[in-house]
Amino acid sequence: MPPIVSLVGKPDSGKTTLLEKLIPALTRQGYRVGTIKHHVHRFEMDKPGKDTWRHKQAGARVVALASPTGLGVIRDVDDDPDVRVLTARSFSDVDLVITEGYKRLDFPKIEVHRRALHAEPLPNRDATWAAMVSDAPAPQGDKLPWFAIDDVAGLASFLIDTFIRPADHPIATLVVDGEPIALNSFVETFLRQSVVGMISALKGCRTPREITVTIRNDPDAT
Amino acid sequence: MPPIVSLVGKPDSGKTTLLEKLIPALTRQGYRVGTIKHHVHRFEMDKPGKDTWRHKQAGARVVALASPTGLGVIRDVDDDPDVRVLTARSFSDVDLVITEGYKRLDFPKIEVHRRALHAEPLPNRDATWAAMVSDAPAPQGDKLPWFAIDDVAGLASFLIDTFIRPADHPIATLVVDGEPIALNSFVETFLRQSVVGMISALKGCRTPREITVTIRNDPDAT
Repeated sequence: MPPIVSLVGKPDSGKTTLLEKLIPALTRQGYRVGTIKHHVHRFEMDKPGKDTWRHKQAGARVVALASPTGLGVIRDVDDDPDVRVLTARSFSDVDLVITEGYKRLDFPKIEVHRRALHAEPLPNRDATWAAMVSDAPAPQGDKLPWFAIDDVAGLASFLIDTFIRPADHPIATLVVDGEPIALNSFVETFLRQSVVGMISALKGCRTPREITVTIRNDPDAT
Repeated sequence: MPPIVSLVGKPDSGKTTLLEKLIPALTRQGYRVGTIKHHVHRFEMDKPGKDTWRHKQAGARVVALASPTGLGVIRDVDDDPDVRVLTARSFSDVDLVITEGYKRLDFPKIEVHRRALHAEPLPNRDATWAAMVSDAPAPQGDKLPWFAIDDVAGLASFLIDTFIRPADHPIATLVVDGEPIALNSFVETFLRQSVVGMISALKGCRTPREITVTIRNDPDAT
């Protein structure tokens, strides 16, 4: 699972604008970036009038648009998705996930602050804060890494060194009833090697790169 | 995995318009419908100007919009997605998947035909054709079920009786390197019970309903 970092800040502090520069800066260095935007108001993603939009309006629970270059899946959910589950399911092919929002979750946070708009940064800075990006100089004695708002290259290097390179990607991930289960090293190895062993026997000598097993357990089935 | 049916027909034959009536007809009877639109031209799904759209334009490989009611994930892909893999991954919570397009694949097909626009139906009807929906009467001797274009209730009943009710949902599904592996009954049971056994041991006595194991196999790892 790729590392997750949250971009937070007061309204209109420029999170999306920063992301628009940060994503290409990371991409140019060969890293694949994924983003998750947290949205609490009316959900709206597709382009009105498109066929998939019409399917969804008609009451489809899930709609997908599939092409040789892009894939989009839009679905109803009954609850705010768990960011770790979403990352495990949909972001396995990126090197870093950056969320916009989710300031109440415990992911490492980069706060964007523009003095021109808000005199002070967020009031509730805690141990999850990893860096500040601001148009103001760092206050004397501030221990956080502090980047100028136009120092996108500096911030990109910080993210690479702090989150992407040291990432200890777990190799086997397990989700039970939508809940990701933390695996210690022994259990991770045991589960991975057991499944790889079974699948290798099925497939002959080929070594698979990624295996996904989904089980809907019917307690009455034998 | 839910059953998959393809809505096919000549251009402008009214596939989307029919879907807009068919989806509510199935939903009213308590069935959850998912749709997949096959699109071979320029991929475009999000609403221009939205934050996720801006992330994607900036080069994010995957963008997600997550809210308490809806979840959208739009991603780059290197190839036309396999419909069965997509269904296994993203449509496990629906009762029927209806594709718009994919007339070259081997899913059961419902052809929409409007004589007002095209004198003849598609020329390549084969054994995968399951029904016709047309504004023309069935030709003498035609063996296919043939629905009037406004008989949405009749078509919905046909889909329920033919595809949804008899669906033999496999309980364990396996995807290796993006390719779904067909499991015979012995292997399906063996894989399912092995994994359920391991997970039950981890979780104590609780019986999970759905388990997803994803393994990225590093041949050098021990």
